[in-house]
Amino acid sequence: MEQPRRFPGKVQNEPGVIASGVYLGGRRVGDIPVDGAATWAGHDGYVVWIGLLEPSSQLLRKVQQEFGLHTLAIEDAEHAHQRPKLELYGDALFVVARTAQLIDGRISFGETHIFLGQGYIVTVRHGASTSYTAVRKHWESCPTSLAKGEDFILYAILDFIVDNYIPVLDAIEEEVEAIEDRVLENPLTRSEIERLYMLRRDLLRLRNAAGPLVEVCVRLTTNELPQIRPQMHPMFRDVTDHVRRVEERIDSLREVLAFAFEASLLIGQGHETAISKKLASWAAILAVPTALAGIYGMNFENMPELGWRFGYPAVLAVMVTVCSVLYWRFRKNGWL
Amino acid sequence: MEQPRRFPGKVQNEPGVIASGVYLGGRRVGDIPVDGAATWAGHDGYVVWIGLLEPSSQLLRKVQQEFGLHTLAIEDAEHAHQRPKLELYGDALFVVARTAQLIDGRISFGETHIFLGQGYIVTVRHGASTSYTAVRKHWESCPTSLAKGEDFILYAILDFIVDNYIPVLDAIEEEVEAIEDRVLENPLTRSEIERLYMLRRDLLRLRNAAGPLVEVCVRLTTNELPQIRPQMHPMFRDVTDHVRRVEERIDSLREVLAFAFEASLLIGQGHETAISKKLASWAAILAVPTALAGIYGMNFENMPELGWRFGYPAVLAVMVTVCSVLYWRFRKNGWL
Amino acid sequence: MEQPRRFPGKVQNEPGVIASGVYLGGRRVGDIPVDGAATWAGHDGYVVWIGLLEPSSQLLRKVQQEFGLHTLAIEDAEHAHQRPKLELYGDALFVVARTAQLIDGRISFGETHIFLGQGYIVTVRHGASTSYTAVRKHWESCPTSLAKGEDFILYAILDFIVDNYIPVLDAIEEEVEAIEDRVLENPLTRSEIERLYMLRRDLLRLRNAAGPLVEVCVRLTTNELPQIRPQMHPMFRDVTDHVRRVEERIDSLREVLAFAFEASLLIGQGHETAISKKLASWAAILAVPTALAGIYGMNFENMPELGWRFGYPAVLAVMVTVCSVLYWRFRKNGWL
Amino acid sequence: MEQPRRFPGKVQNEPGVIASGVYLGGRRVGDIPVDGAATWAGHDGYVVWIGLLEPSSQLLRKVQQEFGLHTLAIEDAEHAHQRPKLELYGDALFVVARTAQLIDGRISFGETHIFLGQGYIVTVRHGASTSYTAVRKHWESCPTSLAKGEDFILYAILDFIVDNYIPVLDAIEEEVEAIEDRVLENPLTRSEIERLYMLRRDLLRLRNAAGPLVEVCVRLTTNELPQIRPQMHPMFRDVTDHVRRVEERIDSLREVLAFAFEASLLIGQGHETAISKKLASWAAILAVPTALAGIYGMNFENMPELGWRFGYPAVLAVMVTVCSVLYWRFRKNGWL
Amino acid sequence: MEQPRRFPGKVQNEPGVIASGVYLGGRRVGDIPVDGAATWAGHDGYVVWIGLLEPSSQLLRKVQQEFGLHTLAIEDAEHAHQRPKLELYGDALFVVARTAQLIDGRISFGETHIFLGQGYIVTVRHGASTSYTAVRKHWESCPTSLAKGEDFILYAILDFIVDNYIPVLDAIEEEVEAIEDRVLENPLTRSEIERLYMLRRDLLRLRNAAGPLVEVCVRLTTNELPQIRPQMHPMFRDVTDHVRRVEERIDSLREVLAFAFEASLLIGQGHETAISKKLASWAAILAVPTALAGIYGMNFENMPELGWRFGYPAVLAVMVTVCSVLYWRFRKNGWL
Ligand SMILES: [Mg+2]
Ligand SMILES: [Mg+2]
Ligand SMILES: [Mg+2]
Ligand SMILES: [Mg+2]
Ligand SMILES: [Mg+2]
Ligand SMILES: [Mg+2]
Ligand SMILES: [Mg+2]
Ligand SMILES: [Mg+2]
Ligand SMILES: [Mg+2]
Ligand SMILES: [Mg+2]
Ligand SMILES: [Mg+2]
Ligand SMILES: [Mg+2]
Ligand SMILES: [Mg+2]
Ligand SMILES: [Mg+2]
Ligand SMILES: [Mg+2]
Ligand SMILES: [Mg+2]
Ligand SMILES: [Mg+2]
Ligand SMILES: [Mg+2]
Ligand SMILES: [Mg+2]
Ligand SMILES: [Mg+2]
Ligand SMILES: [Mg+2]
Ligand SMILES: [Mg+2]
Ligand SMILES: [Mg+2]
Ligand SMILES: [Mg+2]
Ligand SMILES: [Mg+2]
Ligand SMILES: [Mg+2]
Ligand SMILES: [Mg+2]
Ligand SMILES: [Mg+2]
Ligand SMILES: [Mg+2]
Ligand SMILES: [Mg+2]
Ligand SMILES: [Mg+2]
Repeated sequence: MEQPRRFPGKVQNEPGVIASGVYLGGRRVGDIPVDGAATWAGHDGYVVWIGLLEPSSQLLRKVQQEFGLHTLAIEDAEHAHQRPKLELYGDALFVVARTAQLIDGRISFGETHIFLGQGYIVTVRHGASTSYTAVRKHWESCPTSLAKGEDFILYAILDFIVDNYIPVLDAIEEEVEAIEDRVLENPLTRSEIERLYMLRRDLLRLRNAAGPLVEVCVRLTTNELPQIRPQMHPMFRDVTDHVRRVEERIDSLREVLAFAFEASLLIGQGHETAISKKLASWAAILAVPTALAGIYGMNFENMPELGWRFGYPAVLAVMVTVCSVLYWRFRKNGWL
Repeated sequence: MEQPRRFPGKVQNEPGVIASGVYLGGRRVGDIPVDGAATWAGHDGYVVWIGLLEPSSQLLRKVQQEFGLHTLAIEDAEHAHQRPKLELYGDALFVVARTAQLIDGRISFGETHIFLGQGYIVTVRHGASTSYTAVRKHWESCPTSLAKGEDFILYAILDFIVDNYIPVLDAIEEEVEAIEDRVLENPLTRSEIERLYMLRRDLLRLRNAAGPLVEVCVRLTTNELPQIRPQMHPMFRDVTDHVRRVEERIDSLREVLAFAFEASLLIGQGHETAISKKLASWAAILAVPTALAGIYGMNFENMPELGWRFGYPAVLAVMVTVCSVLYWRFRKNGWL
Repeated sequence: MEQPRRFPGKVQNEPGVIASGVYLGGRRVGDIPVDGAATWAGHDGYVVWIGLLEPSSQLLRKVQQEFGLHTLAIEDAEHAHQRPKLELYGDALFVVARTAQLIDGRISFGETHIFLGQGYIVTVRHGASTSYTAVRKHWESCPTSLAKGEDFILYAILDFIVDNYIPVLDAIEEEVEAIEDRVLENPLTRSEIERLYMLRRDLLRLRNAAGPLVEVCVRLTTNELPQIRPQMHPMFRDVTDHVRRVEERIDSLREVLAFAFEASLLIGQGHETAISKKLASWAAILAVPTALAGIYGMNFENMPELGWRFGYPAVLAVMVTVCSVLYWRFRKNGWL
Repeated sequence: MEQPRRFPGKVQNEPGVIASGVYLGGRRVGDIPVDGAATWAGHDGYVVWIGLLEPSSQLLRKVQQEFGLHTLAIEDAEHAHQRPKLELYGDALFVVARTAQLIDGRISFGETHIFLGQGYIVTVRHGASTSYTAVRKHWESCPTSLAKGEDFILYAILDFIVDNYIPVLDAIEEEVEAIEDRVLENPLTRSEIERLYMLRRDLLRLRNAAGPLVEVCVRLTTNELPQIRPQMHPMFRDVTDHVRRVEERIDSLREVLAFAFEASLLIGQGHETAISKKLASWAAILAVPTALAGIYGMNFENMPELGWRFGYPAVLAVMVTVCSVLYWRFRKNGWL
Repeated sequence: MEQPRRFPGKVQNEPGVIASGVYLGGRRVGDIPVDGAATWAGHDGYVVWIGLLEPSSQLLRKVQQEFGLHTLAIEDAEHAHQRPKLELYGDALFVVARTAQLIDGRISFGETHIFLGQGYIVTVRHGASTSYTAVRKHWESCPTSLAKGEDFILYAILDFIVDNYIPVLDAIEEEVEAIEDRVLENPLTRSEIERLYMLRRDLLRLRNAAGPLVEVCVRLTTNELPQIRPQMHPMFRDVTDHVRRVEERIDSLREVLAFAFEASLLIGQGHETAISKKLASWAAILAVPTALAGIYGMNFENMPELGWRFGYPAVLAVMVTVCSVLYWRFRKNGWL
């Protein structure tokens, strides 16, 4: 390993640059401006990590020229809205991942674009994504032998992104379970249906964010990429595994919500039927006094019952009796 | 590179020929008739680009003879209605892509057929598809080293076709989101159901247009095709990526519309149930005065209540009380 | 090429034999009986084409012995009801395809079995399938160099079979579009549901007939089969392509019919709800005069309103007013 | 080939042994006990076929020791309830197939386990499965050169099993078609829904029985198994083909039943709507005389119409007229 | 094989260690503490089996140091909630399987993590999973030659886990069959729908637990893993087979429950229709006396029928007759 070199003093980062440091053996040895970063990357054992946040077009061009990055990758990094993917341009690896975060109880999505080459890594964040300061700190405090390469930083970032899916999933899972309980108790109200619908939407978005990452991680565990040291393969296999587990949980939740929809339809149908039965029962019960009263309200001259002494109480008694019998029978067969 | 050659003066394009030019190092150096175009294509460094729009059968035969194209490809180009595909006939590549365009708010579909061989490219447009004049202009203004081959033109056209899917998708997405809001508010009206149905249809058509293009683009990134220079592979991988992103967005929208259908069914069921409850409640409330009035409308001689001084107001009071109690209870349990 | 040989004069085909000719360089040079056909097939440059229609068991055995065909293939050809497939028995290729035809507006299905070996091709038709006379005529009039082999005849027949799916699909598509319009206008009548159901059935049958042919065609484009000359591969790729296009259209139509079912359910639900609303509205409107009339039909002695001069018209006026107000409100909120 | 050897006289099969014979060149040359069978199997040209029916544990152990079979295969054969599979243990092939049979109009399932090694084949039947006596007879009467190996017996049994699926499928198909007709005529009765449900269940079971057999048959057509002579490959390809055809028919029937469910739901919905319309129409028609009669049943002193001479018939006439008009209108718009 | 060595006397297991023994030729020859276990593992022919139950972090670290295990595997084993998987870290195999158990009639899930290296196996159990004491006992009593390796213990554990799925599946199957009977008899009650829903949930969980194990078992039957002796492959193929059978049964049950949902919807619809018919029938029957009574309750002066002697009984007779005729007709057409 060569001798440590001289650093500029305090570097004032330009807008869009979150961090720009040089590392030796896993420890940060100084801050540098973007211009000239490639020279540091070229020094044996030194690793440059530049972190950008929604950088301007000019800043991206400057980074492109510094490290000789491919124009198409720079375009992707500028416009965002990419699928998770891994692309190899000459000596540089370009990785896109989508991030998810809970902000005020709603999922927000972001994107991270990573350029990785001999001695350097550039990360570009868009939208909702936690700062990688935590990753940086963790890495700086873990100077194992493995940690000496830029591929370890890539691993640390992907691992961090996948770990950040978990609280999002936990929150959705909790809500799904709450919905499940209500589905089986009563027909869903409009706002519950809306919630259920929104959960399906969110899960679909999360699926699109996390799903294609499996393929990216799998490729990072093969011998096809010279930028990744073979000793790093188990680390990337571990990330693969965790993102598969995330995917499986998402798929299960999606299926559970589909079950909930079907169960809700069935329960709603049963509810509708119960109301029809109630309506029919009461209609039948009330039709009896109406019909009887109608008959004794007719104006025929010759209606002997009308003159009977106990005609009126007798009719009332018949009414009450028939209604009670009907009521009792409807109760018994479960219509009321 | 050889010396520039002599061109005919102003070439009057025959019907069906949109453009027919010769390019050297990415810059257009002259216009030529279709006859003899193959000679120019044969000159080292020169590239011939002929653009046809719904050409006649004779014109296609002429092009076929000029460049020695395969009869089956010419038949495809004449009849249109092909699937997106990539076919290799001898030394020539034959590519079919479907185009989509918004015309007056409706999606129109077209087809582009491309013949590509050593030193020439022939594009044949059918139906709704934007003219490639923009591509031509862009290419002529970008004479990088890569731009010197006919494979770059193929890339530029495919990129243009895929980019043109985006505004179509954006428009559909906007409409889907509008429908989504309405689905969750009220049972859909007939015209909203029709709109939802039409969106599904359009997405199905767009899926059929864009989906098979992934496979075409993937084959253009392999070493299997001698017509494509290896340095062009990243460009075609970028197109692949964008068409995959288009495909993913289409699939998500299709799924969202399926959710909307299910949610709509559930909300419609709830609505039906609410109406049944209302109907039953009012029937119950109104049955009370009807039954009571029927009873006191009977003509029995011996009905003491009829002679009571406050019989009538008492009955009215009973009616009002019972109806009010019922109304209050129905309100309370949400039936009214 | 050897010298032409002597033919029997006019050959009287036995029952089940539609045609039995010898071709040289793509032109028919004479008719021959089935016995001895293998000798002609063995002559260099000569091709024997025997066309059978639902042949008897004996005829098939005779053909088997003549060309040394495999017993299992002969059994398949005799019993029909096979899946489309390609089988290699020793030196002979055995191909099964299903044919579809519109007969009186209904789809009828048939089967064609093809035996192909060095210098001969035997076609066996079952059920509804157009005669291959047209193919024969077309082939005889196109003596290109390619046309000189029996593999070209195989191509011509498969191409013909796939082309014949198109009018069937067109007819179904037209009907599907007619159904679609009606689905969105009104709840389907029983006969329309039946039509929709039948279309799904027909498409399922067509899918089973055409789908497995893709695999057959793909195998004909590989180098695995010595019976197919490499120059024929583009021809078979073209058929592959067309059958894939057929498959894609079938799949789209199937999906469209599934959409139509769902839309129909949704529209039917809306219709049901509209009727419930109408019923409830009229019940409410008519309950008012009934209740009021009931009250003034009671026989209490002391009902001052009954003695009022304008009591009756006042009650009528109240009835009309309340009913009108209700009617107007129901109209306004869309229940009537 | 060696000289024929001496056989024991009449062999009394022990319980569980259905048959135990020695064959030479496809012809049965004698019966033998299980003990010592391996010796006969070892003689060149001789094939031993032992047929067991639900054998005891001891009998299976005896067979295991005789032929040196693998313990796991013996365990499978003893416990049944296996998936169709092909397993290679040392020199012996172990094949499991599920059988289906119509018994009193219901499908019964069974299992056949086959051990095949150099010179011997042991078949173990469980549950509902036809005896292989017919296969044995057929084989004994067909001493072609192919028939001289134990692999031919395996083919004959698998072919027999697959052929026996056909009548089961035919019976289901017939029933499905009967159900289809009823689905489109009227909403299904409870017993018809039950039948439909049971058919789906039976098809699911049949799918599980026949489906995995495709994979087994495909492996028998490859060069991977030394127990299968290459000349037998076309025979096993034929079985593969037939079981694929069975699978395709099952899948079609499953899809048809799913269509029937959906159509039934749609028709039931239409039926429900028709009843609602009828109910609403009659309610409206009958409400008219009720309301009118109510009005003229009021006891106001001053109701001039009551004193009119033709007041009563006039009211009756109005009632009849209004009811008739309503009836006619409801008829016309299809509500009645 | 080397000479047996000296063991510590009675080893008091620390908390989290269930068992920690040394085996020679399949027989347990002594108990050892975790510290120093690797030394025993290194002795030729000796196998160390350590069984842990929800071990503490420190205990896991100790085991890690003892056998040089990979940190990521230790992390997985500590946190549980992993997918079934097989991972190769250097010389050690890491296997995760999920276990299922019936506890008080409900399914409980657990996880087992297995580390396997030269001469040792460490099993870590989490959550609901039967103790492997039974496996241990069985293995100790079966000292075949195969049983002499740690790979045999892995097989025994996986076989045990898969076998333990069977009673769980049997219990679910029994319940599914009970639900099926009720589905076809009557519309489901809310609690039955809840049960059906819960069964789908449980099957989904079981699918997630058992499904990925197929892949794990398949990899154990290939030559890719040096830790598995080739003679063990048939054993792992047998486990593969059984877990596939489990998977198939789960999939069938899932499909059956989906059928049950659909059938239930259809039967519920029919039930609803039957109630509508009943309601409409009784409404029609009762409307007749009401309308007739209303007419004869009118107060017209000139209503001749009122003065007829048998007017009243005649009207009653008409009422009874019309109602009876209606009742009879409704009965006949199945509405009542
Ligand atoms: Mg997706
Ligand atoms: Mg998944
Ligand atoms: Mg997954
Ligand atoms: Mg899953
Ligand atoms: Mg997964
Ligand atoms: Mg599923
Ligand atoms: Mg995609
Ligand atoms: Mg996709
Ligand atoms: Mg995609
Ligand atoms: Mg889809
Ligand atoms: Mg999905
Ligand atoms: Mg769907
Ligand atoms: Mg659905
Ligand atoms: Mg549905
Ligand atoms: Mg296709
Ligand atoms: Mg398809
Ligand atoms: Mg397709
Ligand atoms: Mg499609
Ligand atoms: Mg489908
Ligand atoms: Mg098949
Ligand atoms: Mg299949
Ligand atoms: Mg199939
Ligand atoms: Mg199918
Ligand atoms: Mg379906
Ligand atoms: Mg399986
Ligand atoms: Mg499966
Ligand atoms: Mg399965
Ligand atoms: Mg299955
Ligand atoms: Mg299925
Ligand atoms: Mg489903
Ligand atoms: Mg459904």
